[in-house]
Amino acid sequence: MISSDYTRGLFITDSSARIVMLVIDGLGGLPHPDSGRSELETANLPNLDALCARGSTGLISPLGPGFTPGSGPAHLALFGYDPWTSSIGRGALSGLGLGLDFKPGDVAARLNFCTVDDAGLVTDRRAGRIPTDVCVRLCALLQDITIPGVKVTVAAEMEYRAAVVFRGEGLSDGVTDSDPQVTGHLPLPLQAATAADERMVAVANQFLDQVRHILADESPANMVLIRGFGRYPELPSMQQVYGLHPVGIAGYPMYRGIASVVGMETPETDWDVDAELDLLQQRWRNHPDEDFYYVHVKKTDSAGEDGDFDKKVHLLEEVDARIPRILELEPDVLIVTGDHSTPSIMRAHSWHPVPTVIASGRCIPVHGAQLSERSCASGSLGQIPSTALMALALAHAGRLAKFGA
Amino acid sequence: MISSDYTRGLFITDSSARIVMLVIDGLGGLPHPDSGRSELETANLPNLDALCARGSTGLISPLGPGFTPGSGPAHLALFGYDPWTSSIGRGALSGLGLGLDFKPGDVAARLNFCTVDDAGLVTDRRAGRIPTDVCVRLCALLQDITIPGVKVTVAAEMEYRAAVVFRGEGLSDGVTDSDPQVTGHLPLPLQAATAADERMVAVANQFLDQVRHILADESPANMVLIRGFGRYPELPSMQQVYGLHPVGIAGYPMYRGIASVVGMETPETDWDVDAELDLLQQRWRNHPDEDFYYVHVKKTDSAGEDGDFDKKVHLLEEVDARIPRILELEPDVLIVTGDHSTPSIMRAHSWHPVPTVIASGRCIPVHGAQLSERSCASGSLGQIPSTALMALALAHAGRLAKFGA
Repeated sequence: MISSDYTRGLFITDSSARIVMLVIDGLGGLPHPDSGRSELETANLPNLDALCARGSTGLISPLGPGFTPGSGPAHLALFGYDPWTSSIGRGALSGLGLGLDFKPGDVAARLNFCTVDDAGLVTDRRAGRIPTDVCVRLCALLQDITIPGVKVTVAAEMEYRAAVVFRGEGLSDGVTDSDPQVTGHLPLPLQAATAADERMVAVANQFLDQVRHILADESPANMVLIRGFGRYPELPSMQQVYGLHPVGIAGYPMYRGIASVVGMETPETDWDVDAELDLLQQRWRNHPDEDFYYVHVKKTDSAGEDGDFDKKVHLLEEVDARIPRILELEPDVLIVTGDHSTPSIMRAHSWHPVPTVIASGRCIPVHGAQLSERSCASGSLGQIPSTALMALALAHAGRLAKFGA
Repeated sequence: MISSDYTRGLFITDSSARIVMLVIDGLGGLPHPDSGRSELETANLPNLDALCARGSTGLISPLGPGFTPGSGPAHLALFGYDPWTSSIGRGALSGLGLGLDFKPGDVAARLNFCTVDDAGLVTDRRAGRIPTDVCVRLCALLQDITIPGVKVTVAAEMEYRAAVVFRGEGLSDGVTDSDPQVTGHLPLPLQAATAADERMVAVANQFLDQVRHILADESPANMVLIRGFGRYPELPSMQQVYGLHPVGIAGYPMYRGIASVVGMETPETDWDVDAELDLLQQRWRNHPDEDFYYVHVKKTDSAGEDGDFDKKVHLLEEVDARIPRILELEPDVLIVTGDHSTPSIMRAHSWHPVPTVIASGRCIPVHGAQLSERSCASGSLGQIPSTALMALALAHAGRLAKFGA
């Protein structure tokens, strides 16, 4: 995809209109079997209701009907990037999210600490879910790995999960995973997609050999499985494709990582919503040149993944109570949406399209509109791809020129 | 785009079913801040209501969410042509619409007579909206312009609007506009998109120099702004891609121009709706081989662009009162739609999708459907691209064959 595909070069830069996009992670849900009402339909959301009563509502789909996105593709779609062709490897996402020293040309991969027997067969793909502090200690041991011409950085993520970044000449990411996905098998041999990926395979094999040696006496985590090789993603920036000066406000590192991939400034913040909104208000007032703020709320998704319906309802109400903090800034356009749905009854991300509201002076509110799966299904925005949202954001801000005479 | 993309070659030619597509320019609007009702929701439209009560309604989007079309792309989309790749320069449209001697290889541009002060600053981009007869007189003066190797033809359009056609070797249309879009500025210098466009820039600059000289003593129209350079567009005809014998009925020359580009016959008519419908009725009765009539209503768009909410409401009611004149012809399919939205509160074209009704014996009316932005948002046609309308027109006319056995 070339940059002109995003907005056909029609964006207007000499505008002072400012946009806030509040992304409530895993926003959409499904009806609770007892009440027949979804999390959004159960929650008391007076501020979001008021926003829908004057805005345009609709449903947005990150990948199209039936396809469930991970966080990476879901966010790329929100920012207008084709999530199928612009995908970021899981390793790259971890690398970005951990705030590792990770830059263009580098290749990252995801590591899972695991247990192997004397024959090398995998007996536990998660090494008994070792606690995070053990993971941190083991990762420190792996910093001793040396590969000629390659800088290796290993960092702990959570429990048995870690990430590695390789930096050097001629590295690439066309490499298969070693994770056999089942126990009782040897790790899979790494395979190169093309001849150009042979060097990366050789480097990764050296890495795995040294890991095996270093961890030989550890228990239960005496080996790693490596997967999700991914180059630092090189995407056109939101400055280039939208003419915006974007800022990403996200407490959780991975979302700052995604935001920085598309060119946002990503000041650090705690992941508490109030802390994020403190930062938003401070940036808004002190940086009048900044015109696009992505604000990310994480905990709603976690509650959905935990299957905690009531907690998700409560967290939605907490977000609702903070909407006035955004409105007092008087943004020209306020969008409230989600990256994907995470229905509590599914305990997972899902494919269901995401309730969305755009509020500006150019909207078509429908009678009784609310920010819910069912209400937004008949909103005036229709049911559209998530990738269409950025053009709508610019249009509602008066930042998109007419095409043709 | 090749012709088979339009209907996959499935159109049926041995049919006597006839289609009328009434295009109300700038049809869609936005709620008035006082009443909360849009132009369509404010107007009393008993005949259109009755049509919606037995037809299928929906919203059509010319360019997709967020993108605002000019008249050219908006109409091409209505006729089923990809508006992004088939676009026609405004000047080319005007050249076509005026019935100028305009053919492949020529380049046309739009002229607006304007007023400049002694310093050359534009003080009125429309020269006080000079009457058409003054425009005709001034265009006659400009026929004296001579540029070596280039034939120049200037013709009046309406009020302050005119068009010029350049014919000669090496002309092209990658040239920017001189219209600064605001008063108090000099006209913009013409710029070439590529080296191949330098000759066209030089020719156009010679033209402008001579115009300045010829009009120096005129008032208020003492200069022109030039814009919308466009080559003669070469598109497959509606005969080829739909098997139709189409007729365009439009009083305003530019719309006859668009219609002729896609192969319609375009008999001249006044732009009064009754005159257009007189012509429709006459053609319908005397030319039974003609099976597709595009009928264009212009004034609704002008009222929207002028920000005259009440006038747009009144004009919609005038159109509604004339729907019976179409119905008495008993068309197999009657479509009422718009090329794009022109909300009065925005005083401009917009990206909002356009309320649409298709009436035939094969429809799915929804309860209480009306021709309005909100009602059509939940109509049975859904929210679809404008380019899908022609296939629906053919389908409702029984003119599109089954695909596959």
